[in-house]
Amino acid sequence: MDVEQGNKEIAISQKWPCLGQFFAKVKSAFIGFLKKIKKIAMDDPRRMIHAIKVGLTLTLVSTLYYVTPLFDGFGESSMWAVLTVVVVMEYTAGGTLCKGLNRAFATVIAGSLGVGAHHIAALCGQKGEAILLALFVFLLAASATFSRFIPEVKARYDYGVTIFILTFSLVAVSSYRVNELVQMAHQRVSTIAIGVATCLCTSLFVFPVWAGEDLHKMVASNLDKLASFLEGIETECFGEKANFESLEGKPFLQVYKSVLNSKATEDSLCNFAKWEPCHGNFSFRHPWKQYQNVGGLIRQCAASMDALSSYLTSFSKTKPKFKADAELQLEIQSACREMSSESANALRDLSLAIRSMTVPSLARCHVSAATSAAANLRTVLSNDITVWETVHVAMIASLLAELVNCIKEIACSVDELAELAQFKSTDSVHSAAVKPVLEEETPQQVAIDISS
Amino acid sequence: MDVEQGNKEIAISQKWPCLGQFFAKVKSAFIGFLKKIKKIAMDDPRRMIHAIKVGLTLTLVSTLYYVTPLFDGFGESSMWAVLTVVVVMEYTAGGTLCKGLNRAFATVIAGSLGVGAHHIAALCGQKGEAILLALFVFLLAASATFSRFIPEVKARYDYGVTIFILTFSLVAVSSYRVNELVQMAHQRVSTIAIGVATCLCTSLFVFPVWAGEDLHKMVASNLDKLASFLEGIETECFGEKANFESLEGKPFLQVYKSVLNSKATEDSLCNFAKWEPCHGNFSFRHPWKQYQNVGGLIRQCAASMDALSSYLTSFSKTKPKFKADAELQLEIQSACREMSSESANALRDLSLAIRSMTVPSLARCHVSAATSAAANLRTVLSNDITVWETVHVAMIASLLAELVNCIKEIACSVDELAELAQFKSTDSVHSAAVKPVLEEETPQQVAIDISS
Repeated sequence: MDVEQGNKEIAISQKWPCLGQFFAKVKSAFIGFLKKIKKIAMDDPRRMIHAIKVGLTLTLVSTLYYVTPLFDGFGESSMWAVLTVVVVMEYTAGGTLCKGLNRAFATVIAGSLGVGAHHIAALCGQKGEAILLALFVFLLAASATFSRFIPEVKARYDYGVTIFILTFSLVAVSSYRVNELVQMAHQRVSTIAIGVATCLCTSLFVFPVWAGEDLHKMVASNLDKLASFLEGIETECFGEKANFESLEGKPFLQVYKSVLNSKATEDSLCNFAKWEPCHGNFSFRHPWKQYQNVGGLIRQCAASMDALSSYLTSFSKTKPKFKADAELQLEIQSACREMSSESANALRDLSLAIRSMTVPSLARCHVSAATSAAANLRTVLSNDITVWETVHVAMIASLLAELVNCIKEIACSVDELAELAQFKSTDSVHSAAVKPVLEEETPQQVAIDISS
Repeated sequence: MDVEQGNKEIAISQKWPCLGQFFAKVKSAFIGFLKKIKKIAMDDPRRMIHAIKVGLTLTLVSTLYYVTPLFDGFGESSMWAVLTVVVVMEYTAGGTLCKGLNRAFATVIAGSLGVGAHHIAALCGQKGEAILLALFVFLLAASATFSRFIPEVKARYDYGVTIFILTFSLVAVSSYRVNELVQMAHQRVSTIAIGVATCLCTSLFVFPVWAGEDLHKMVASNLDKLASFLEGIETECFGEKANFESLEGKPFLQVYKSVLNSKATEDSLCNFAKWEPCHGNFSFRHPWKQYQNVGGLIRQCAASMDALSSYLTSFSKTKPKFKADAELQLEIQSACREMSSESANALRDLSLAIRSMTVPSLARCHVSAATSAAANLRTVLSNDITVWETVHVAMIASLLAELVNCIKEIACSVDELAELAQFKSTDSVHSAAVKPVLEEETPQQVAIDISS
């Protein structure tokens, strides 16, 4: 069969070579796409379950249309149940709860206000009613939209405010045309309640994805990543087979990088976790905010690692040759080994403690061992007062030199931007021409890339 | 009047002291709230304009209800115009365009698919139709939901996919009950188009807020923030009145911090900017992605500044006393002054170049001056080979010590979490009790906070 098909393909490509190439391209693009889909599904199988859950919930809610007695009860309002399911279902249970409760409460409050606005406006006659209703809608929409700029409202009730404006406008405006307003409002509120309830049932009881649990695991795994970096430092830089020359491209120098950009995910998980009821080992009032605090410190630590990592990489490029006999160097190296291994152990213990939800017991010992290694080092260095002071000032200078490197990259990137966006060039060629004079005055200042 | 009111308040508070306190609290909370609102409005007056714009657009669209000939044309479908305005109007023009176009195209595509599904299902009789429609809805909702996990879809078409599921479900499901399906679909598409068009008009032509312009300004102002930090370093650490002892609490050590968390805002602005038509100096295909690249490098630079800043702060706590006569120190200090001032100048020039959209002309000179200062410093340091090597190793050790500090804070924070979340304590008190033996073996290792 395969041979036969192969022959066919060859035959096609001989007749229309372009067509053959085109089909080959489409085929490889399609296979690439399928592989991507498979990877996304394999990375986290809960994603597939979520997709199936959404499909099921929607099918379930649409029985309001198919079953005649139900449809007779709710009529056209059944569509609100479908609409609610589509916009409320979120990946995590907390997300669905947040959106569902926001939607339910905002609908009830705004619906009542809308009915009230209708009764007030109805007192003013046909024309007056339209004007008054338009005024109400304008005032409420403008002030509610403005309230979304308040950070607290934005964080927890953004969706609720949207639904509030939506429901108020719909009820108030359609009250001008609909006679049985209260019945309509009642039907809509019921169908929205049915939609929200269905979503909550599938979200909370069918293979639930808890935002809180994900946050909990994420913080623990971020701690593990930091630990891996330090373990890498220990073996590659201060271990027995330490080799500073071949550091570039080592995986441990990259492992902490994903931690640096974890803030957005963490914030949204924390926001959703606050809505979740007790589940597993987590109570309703679990201190989710503290995870954000720990996460902030973890990111700060990753930033320090970034500084160390870029220093190590640029240092390893200078192909350092240590004189192994220098006593001071040996002492510094052993202190470094101790600091990195004890710190890594502390992080591993903290991660384990979070995973198993037990009080971290050994971390404190590891941290004090690392701290005392640092203190020892300080004593060793401060014995020789000249070295001590030079080290400090040189350290600041070295960090500054690192900054200079960063800024050089920024300058290149802005140059690229200027080229891509076709920025105007100024007449300041003159002022640039002044520069060489200054360079002649100080001829020893030749631009050399410090990282090379 | 004031005296009279004051007397009244005193009278009330004498009669019901609790009530008086309560009113005072409510009053102060209300005044605080008003001040907050005023601050939000003053920080960016465009927010107030946006709120008014949303109110106006909504009022405008609701005339579909008030004007009888219009209402006769669209009927109940008028509500889709109101609904569209509420959910599509975004703060920036790009945001509105992104949502509006997503909504419009998704509605048209999904609506056509829905009508097609109806025709296929109608071939199978009353019962078969319901089952087939339910199956279509399930399959489409599940696969569309899954597609949202593909990063590219998530970034640009997330809202479109929601509307796609929504419209398909509504059309397919209600086709079971509605006889004039095509007319209904036509009415809905027209009203949604009216809603989107109204939103786009107010967003693009009435005081538009351009995401691209905001992104452009944000990148330039972030460069300025980095420059301020370096200028602060120059005057406070290496200037004539430099005083390392009083660094803590200086504002320049905080100025770069907001840059560290700018990624989320930058990404969303860039995503919206891509949808915007040409405006001001920006063409439709302006290289917005390059702003993200520059922004990434800026954040990396800010992270290096964080390392330098925390080192400087902890160093200033040791109350250093320099011997001003040491030649090496003076040379290092002057190199540092040069590096920081030239880097700051380069950043200011880059920021100015972006603001005025001109090719940065002086930045290159400043960068090479800073680079040569760094190279000089390197030469100076490497003259004394012992100092040179010690500086390098000590530098790594010092960065590691900084990490140890970070990890100590993380450990404290996790301890707090364990307390707040009532983590179980393990039986590992035994293993903790082993530790002091080790400390006795190396009695010189006493835990001392390196930062104090």
